[in-house]
Amino acid sequence: MEKLKTLELLIDYLKRLPSVGTKSAERMAYAILNMDLDIVEGFADALVKTKTSVHSCPTCGLYTEQDLCTICKDKNRSSETVIVVSNPKDISGFERIDDFRGRYHVLGGLLSATSNVNPEDLKINELIKRIQSENIKEIIIATNPTIEGEITALYLARQLGDQAVKVSRIAYGLPMGGQVDYIDSLTLFKALENRREIK
Amino acid sequence: MEKLKTLELLIDYLKRLPSVGTKSAERMAYAILNMDLDIVEGFADALVKTKTSVHSCPTCGLYTEQDLCTICKDKNRSSETVIVVSNPKDISGFERIDDFRGRYHVLGGLLSATSNVNPEDLKINELIKRIQSENIKEIIIATNPTIEGEITALYLARQLGDQAVKVSRIAYGLPMGGQVDYIDSLTLFKALENRREIK
Repeated sequence: MEKLKTLELLIDYLKRLPSVGTKSAERMAYAILNMDLDIVEGFADALVKTKTSVHSCPTCGLYTEQDLCTICKDKNRSSETVIVVSNPKDISGFERIDDFRGRYHVLGGLLSATSNVNPEDLKINELIKRIQSENIKEIIIATNPTIEGEITALYLARQLGDQAVKVSRIAYGLPMGGQVDYIDSLTLFKALENRREIK
Repeated sequence: MEKLKTLELLIDYLKRLPSVGTKSAERMAYAILNMDLDIVEGFADALVKTKTSVHSCPTCGLYTEQDLCTICKDKNRSSETVIVVSNPKDISGFERIDDFRGRYHVLGGLLSATSNVNPEDLKINELIKRIQSENIKEIIIATNPTIEGEITALYLARQLGDQAVKVSRIAYGLPMGGQVDYIDSLTLFKALENRREIK
């Protein structure tokens, strides 16, 4: 059977995408062979253009195509409250609730012994500089409720210990629409621990 | 939140790939942002090169980078037996068993009322021409055991009715390593129907 060198190279590249194994990459490559040439050229162009024109905002770390991201540029938003996330894509949920008019700070990862991510790999010093220069009043740490997210939140809170800033962590509990009989016991434990009086 | 036009365009292209929805496409696009530029450029290049250099073999329909595919060119293979498949990727299984020294013919799809694939969309006339010019003795129809694969096999068998050629269909039954208690009843029914005497 003929080795199609270009096709196999394409399959290798497709396998670099998250959750794409050999079988999926093959199916994708065959689908690409069935696309029109102008579509494939547009796809190739979009790949390179995205990589060359999208970069991290030098202030907060969000992705932008401009010198500063639109949130950092927006004069109607205040730096009083800054939500700290691990990755740029984590902010979309907060932006959807439409209520938050503060700013963000992207750490660029989570502390992890297994993936060898150390404090100096995260944008913590950059955050401390922002606290001082932007007059930030509250930092809300919104890393994932996983072991790595927790460790990073605790480490960050300690690093900010001598800053004149309030540091909080987003709440744990049942997700809205969740079911008490289906939820895992750790979440339920946290939901009990963080109960609020309502009478 | 800033609309990243190039990123969104890339996400749209990624969504054209099979089994890729919005969420997966977004994750892929963010992964691409984290790749090195030379990788992304290589990926883009592989896309266009694959599309421009890989084409269907004019004789059998397999993908090739040459004028004729290596199987059609191979003088050690004979046209006496030709396996008919719906898509080029279907042949890799047959090639792996290493025993088959015949050739292939790709129909380029399956008859389907829902996807509006008609007999003239399939390479049936091309097969009839090959039967006459290549002295083919047996056609083995290896379309999938689905409704569309069956209809196509039956249609093709009828079209080949007046050709001096044997027409067969690959066997149905339990897959090797399959379990009788887990297999669907239609397969079990076919396995019973196609039973072979062993004593």
